Amino acid sequence: MGGDHGPSVVLPGLAKVLERRADVQFVLFGRSDAVVPILETLPRLKAASTFHHCEVSVRMDDKPSQALRHGRRDSSMWKAIEAVKNGDADVCVSAGNTGALMAMAKVCLKTLGPIERPAIAAIWPTIKSECIVLDVGATIGGDAQQLVDFAILGSAMAHAVFQLERPKVGLLNVGVEEIKGQEQVKDAGQMLRDAGLDSMDYTGFVEGDDIGKGTVDVVVTEGFSGNIALKTAEGTAKLIAEYLRDAMSRTLMAKIGYLFARSAFSRLREKLDVRKVNGGVFLGLSGLVVKSHGGTDAEGIAAAVELGYDMVRRRLLDTIRADLDRYHARPQIQAEPAAAAAAAGQ
Amino acid sequence: MGGDHGPSVVLPGLAKVLERRADVQFVLFGRSDAVVPILETLPRLKAASTFHHCEVSVRMDDKPSQALRHGRRDSSMWKAIEAVKNGDADVCVSAGNTGALMAMAKVCLKTLGPIERPAIAAIWPTIKSECIVLDVGATIGGDAQQLVDFAILGSAMAHAVFQLERPKVGLLNVGVEEIKGQEQVKDAGQMLRDAGLDSMDYTGFVEGDDIGKGTVDVVVTEGFSGNIALKTAEGTAKLIAEYLRDAMSRTLMAKIGYLFARSAFSRLREKLDVRKVNGGVFLGLSGLVVKSHGGTDAEGIAAAVELGYDMVRRRLLDTIRADLDRYHARPQIQAEPAAAAAAAGQ
Repeated sequence: MGGDHGPSVVLPGLAKVLERRADVQFVLFGRSDAVVPILETLPRLKAASTFHHCEVSVRMDDKPSQALRHGRRDSSMWKAIEAVKNGDADVCVSAGNTGALMAMAKVCLKTLGPIERPAIAAIWPTIKSECIVLDVGATIGGDAQQLVDFAILGSAMAHAVFQLERPKVGLLNVGVEEIKGQEQVKDAGQMLRDAGLDSMDYTGFVEGDDIGKGTVDVVVTEGFSGNIALKTAEGTAKLIAEYLRDAMSRTLMAKIGYLFARSAFSRLREKLDVRKVNGGVFLGLSGLVVKSHGGTDAEGIAAAVELGYDMVRRRLLDTIRADLDRYHARPQIQAEPAAAAAAAGQ
Repeated sequence: MGGDHGPSVVLPGLAKVLERRADVQFVLFGRSDAVVPILETLPRLKAASTFHHCEVSVRMDDKPSQALRHGRRDSSMWKAIEAVKNGDADVCVSAGNTGALMAMAKVCLKTLGPIERPAIAAIWPTIKSECIVLDVGATIGGDAQQLVDFAILGSAMAHAVFQLERPKVGLLNVGVEEIKGQEQVKDAGQMLRDAGLDSMDYTGFVEGDDIGKGTVDVVVTEGFSGNIALKTAEGTAKLIAEYLRDAMSRTLMAKIGYLFARSAFSRLREKLDVRKVNGGVFLGLSGLVVKSHGGTDAEGIAAAVELGYDMVRRRLLDTIRADLDRYHARPQIQAEPAAAAAAAGQ
């Protein structure tokens, strides 16, 4: 039911996934009057889906606290998250209200054992390929331990999504002042160096311009600066696109040049296509949740669902549990992995 | 002596300023063996300049504390700042080590009366025109009062540089979480609303993508997130330029298109030319200091100097003193402006 266009965009998006991931199965939650008529026009999708009518749907402008209060357990959003908790689904994907989705996911799925606060991870285009940035908005502030946990979560995701054995991880910091950066960032750096984890290659501090350069595979920061970085990058991309459009339409010569180079511009547009990297991944919970951009189209929805699908196939949650166990059991006596995983999953 | 290329770029930059601001006069500090030979080739510049030989120069990789310790009062950087303090110069411009420059400026010039920590303000291109973002790296963290002070400093600079009567001011924040954003940002917003200052139009919170949109004339934040935003925007611009270059050189048609649209591409390059908006302005000190990018060319140096020149001409420091007085004297009995300004200048 979520996003700017609801089922009219979400369902065609799922139909696209089905063309590319033939074994996928969908459990759909929403109002039947909105979903069923469209589902009827997509027979292949209908055959691969189970539909559950939900009277209530969370609105895009509901406050998270409202979404939690008013009949929350009847809403399509809650039911979709609950399906992950109950094992009826492997991953929940929503294009709805981010704050409500995160609040419900925290209440329903709970955080993994040692994790205090979950993070939202974004996939970011770089000159080399792509990187993961987290947290981009679930937290404000956070201590060194939290940043270390984010590094573990992010490197596990890079392992699953980019199929890297030992992803390069950097802590986002600033380089201007004498005492460079925040205390907690420095402490987190020391902790990661001391831990010497097999699962990641901690390379030290990175600055804002390193994100787009692709200096590392995973950029770790707390949610305030991470969200500002993400939105600033989006704003900068729009600014440059606007400049380019303006420059290309200003003279006849430029317009002719544009015609010749049209395929090159399509290529550029494709490279910068945010739909391809659509999907904020909620990490640190005992189940997987992917938040799609609300304003995206069917292709964007498909990308978010496929991201979820691929993370499930590559057993992201198992990797996260094992990496967290290994880190947090480190100073003490090594806990029995199976028991720790079960405790973490509670 | 500062920057990647020293006097070989700085002096030609000053010569450019002289062509455009005929009444400017320069007080130059540096090693005579590096400066004098180049100055001899620029007779007009030589005639408009006073040169002071300084044996010591701060290195680009000196730590600020080192720069303050070792013979600091003999260095060209210190002497240039001191010239502002002594009234021998109206503004100090340096392409040198930012951390050392800020540390020396704080020690030599001191902060203005009620200001606890100075900020670095950057001019940022927007879809509409330009805006000012501060702090981009002088501080880490900061309380609500500090953000309010930054708002006053930034709006005074927008008044001087953009010649706006009542600049629009926004506080940088995030919009994802229930309890939106940092406590200190919320408190600062309340304080600015309560103050109802004539000198600015406080419009509320803005997010990262609002910077490039030009939603406001002044974006206020503490230096950690401000520096990350600035560097992330730089990185994104480089990323897109790289994509564009790649797309335009990939096929014959694209190359032909590029030839036709060459002037449009020059126009774009000009729009994105960081040299034009070169210059971080140190605000909150009892004198003006402009930090030029170290890697810039003569045109960039000229832009930084002209920014300083224009701020002096438009009496930025007087505006800042008056605005700070008005704000800080607000709850108490109105202080005598002249006396307060004198006290602030100590």
